[in-house]
Amino acid sequence: MDQSYHPVRGRAERRACWTLAAAAVFVPTVLAAQQPPAQQQRPAMPRITVLGTGPSNSLTDVPGLKVGHYTRTDSGYRSGTTVIRTEQGATAGYSQMGGAPGTKETDLLKPGGQVRGVQAIVLSGGSAYGLDAASGVMQWMEENKFGVFVGAGVVPIVPAAILMDLGRGGDFKKRPDASFGYKATVAASNQPVKSGRIGVGMGAGWGMGTASVKLSNGYTVAAIVGLNPAGSPVDPRTCLPYGLFLEIDNEFNLVQPKAEECQAANAGRGGPNDGSDSAPRNTTIALVATDAPLLDLEAGRMAEIANAGLARSIRPIHNIGDGDTVFGMATTPFTTQLSNADLQAVFNAAADVLGRAVVHAVVESKQVGSSRMGYCQQYPSACVKRK
Amino acid sequence: MDQSYHPVRGRAERRACWTLAAAAVFVPTVLAAQQPPAQQQRPAMPRITVLGTGPSNSLTDVPGLKVGHYTRTDSGYRSGTTVIRTEQGATAGYSQMGGAPGTKETDLLKPGGQVRGVQAIVLSGGSAYGLDAASGVMQWMEENKFGVFVGAGVVPIVPAAILMDLGRGGDFKKRPDASFGYKATVAASNQPVKSGRIGVGMGAGWGMGTASVKLSNGYTVAAIVGLNPAGSPVDPRTCLPYGLFLEIDNEFNLVQPKAEECQAANAGRGGPNDGSDSAPRNTTIALVATDAPLLDLEAGRMAEIANAGLARSIRPIHNIGDGDTVFGMATTPFTTQLSNADLQAVFNAAADVLGRAVVHAVVESKQVGSSRMGYCQQYPSACVKRK
Repeated sequence: MDQSYHPVRGRAERRACWTLAAAAVFVPTVLAAQQPPAQQQRPAMPRITVLGTGPSNSLTDVPGLKVGHYTRTDSGYRSGTTVIRTEQGATAGYSQMGGAPGTKETDLLKPGGQVRGVQAIVLSGGSAYGLDAASGVMQWMEENKFGVFVGAGVVPIVPAAILMDLGRGGDFKKRPDASFGYKATVAASNQPVKSGRIGVGMGAGWGMGTASVKLSNGYTVAAIVGLNPAGSPVDPRTCLPYGLFLEIDNEFNLVQPKAEECQAANAGRGGPNDGSDSAPRNTTIALVATDAPLLDLEAGRMAEIANAGLARSIRPIHNIGDGDTVFGMATTPFTTQLSNADLQAVFNAAADVLGRAVVHAVVESKQVGSSRMGYCQQYPSACVKRK
Repeated sequence: MDQSYHPVRGRAERRACWTLAAAAVFVPTVLAAQQPPAQQQRPAMPRITVLGTGPSNSLTDVPGLKVGHYTRTDSGYRSGTTVIRTEQGATAGYSQMGGAPGTKETDLLKPGGQVRGVQAIVLSGGSAYGLDAASGVMQWMEENKFGVFVGAGVVPIVPAAILMDLGRGGDFKKRPDASFGYKATVAASNQPVKSGRIGVGMGAGWGMGTASVKLSNGYTVAAIVGLNPAGSPVDPRTCLPYGLFLEIDNEFNLVQPKAEECQAANAGRGGPNDGSDSAPRNTTIALVATDAPLLDLEAGRMAEIANAGLARSIRPIHNIGDGDTVFGMATTPFTTQLSNADLQAVFNAAADVLGRAVVHAVVESKQVGSSRMGYCQQYPSACVKRK
């Protein structure tokens, strides 16, 4: 890591390593507006830049994480569960901003409590019923002896959040239960995760998205999101995703869609621009993760700051019918306190990578059954450069 | 109000009153993606739209508010104080997100406490020293018998937040004190507020901005901001403000600046794109206000949601060296509970109006002494359509 960690001491040195795009994200602090008196010299701040996406541009670019989905579209089902699990446990925190949350084991994530780590986190469809999926994850964890050791056995720590997809395509009564969580856990691997209509994204308005980023301080930050907001991730004036400006290396590869496609989508029903659903039927749930060693309160702060990524990619956000909940997870045990510069870079990266995960959900989720039409089906002219 | 408050019951009716731009903001819920089974009919949601800015497009468009500034640029000063006060008291709450806040009397704003209203709120330069400005506001309030009556006298409730402008142009030791607060209170009026380098904005990196919006449910929402973020409100790739897309009725009237101006600003020091300052020298402080009758906890939620407006207009946001604090204020006493639709419209409007206030600060603050160059000085080609 040391070779990519640049303390900045002089103006010439600072200029020499100026990188335009990354600068606005991580180096707002480099150039001085005027000459400060000597006693107010700015403290030397390490300059941390974005190197690019991680190898798979997905959540599993964070070492130590496995991701598994279980999805059903048969027998009246159209929902699913996504499990993010660790072998070693991970430090975790969360932020809850929407007005209609459905969560389990989140109070335990408040800093200062006994438990500072989790075995897994569950993102699921099924509204409050879907929280049962976490029980299946706990069952697998108990069978495999992952959890907090307490005398005769283990208690696995598996926080969960749900989104509201009941009756949106599938039958109201067909929703994730413990078996979904168990099977998603069995399926979990460290293989690349593909955004689309799978797991937590199957019943969600806009599907599931994931993205990652590699920072010059050596850390990776990644996100996964189940996208079901009351607001819209697509700007009705351009018919492009709000979060498109966060793009790294042409990962979305969109062009301005034709005016007639945009007009038709805005006028018609069921288009991606009409907002996801009515107030009681929404929620965006997400997880941001890093291999930076964080305290539990820092993992929580990372989740809190990541809300800025939702605000930049969805509008309006945190509505009364949204249960918006973001988990933060750090897979490396806390050893020494990170510098403010490292923390800030990781937190800001969490915001941007979550915004990018939202855009991936939008552009990569295809229509399944009566679900929302895929973005590239709705706006083929926007997607001509995509394979 | 009743005539602009449209309960929406049928699809035809919903289509008939579809308005493109406002739809993405306040009516993400109108059109259904598919036919839900009968038992899952969406509840009728009133449709609330943006009518336009308020008459002055500033904070005083909210009835019941007076705004006053006191600014010094003589004798080594370059700082100031802004006071937002009420005659009747106002319900208030707040949200604190940045990593380096300077605040006074904010614990009192937590919901459920004894005091549910405030006489005034102070936004000031001067870092933690500048909190003294609130004492001068209290002095004026005591002299004029505004406050909580307690036996022999009154105790005025005057929460305050500061931003860090010490030594940035002015002398480090020349900072707002009680006299600033007193004089700003005396100067306060319900006249239109002009964005620019005044009051809390004098020493701030990007000045002070204000904006308002009028909703079809009859309520006005407005914001004021002292803009001094570690992040940047200008996108370095376009050299346009991030929050430009929130514009109402050409209020900013910018065009794409010439590439050479953008390049020069990104390469040079002191340009608007270099981020405001080093980590220990920042903070964005703001107030969002409405004449909707809110509970204290709702005023706090309005402030919390308004952070989305900061996230959309400043990047990165809520850094470790930012003391970002947003106050929420409701000038109409709580009588009956607002509908979810009304609350959601007011909260989302608070986010957007705060984002617009940020852009007003950027484009309307001019250079004073050694302060940052004004946006239109830096990018004259972006401002050719502005008078």
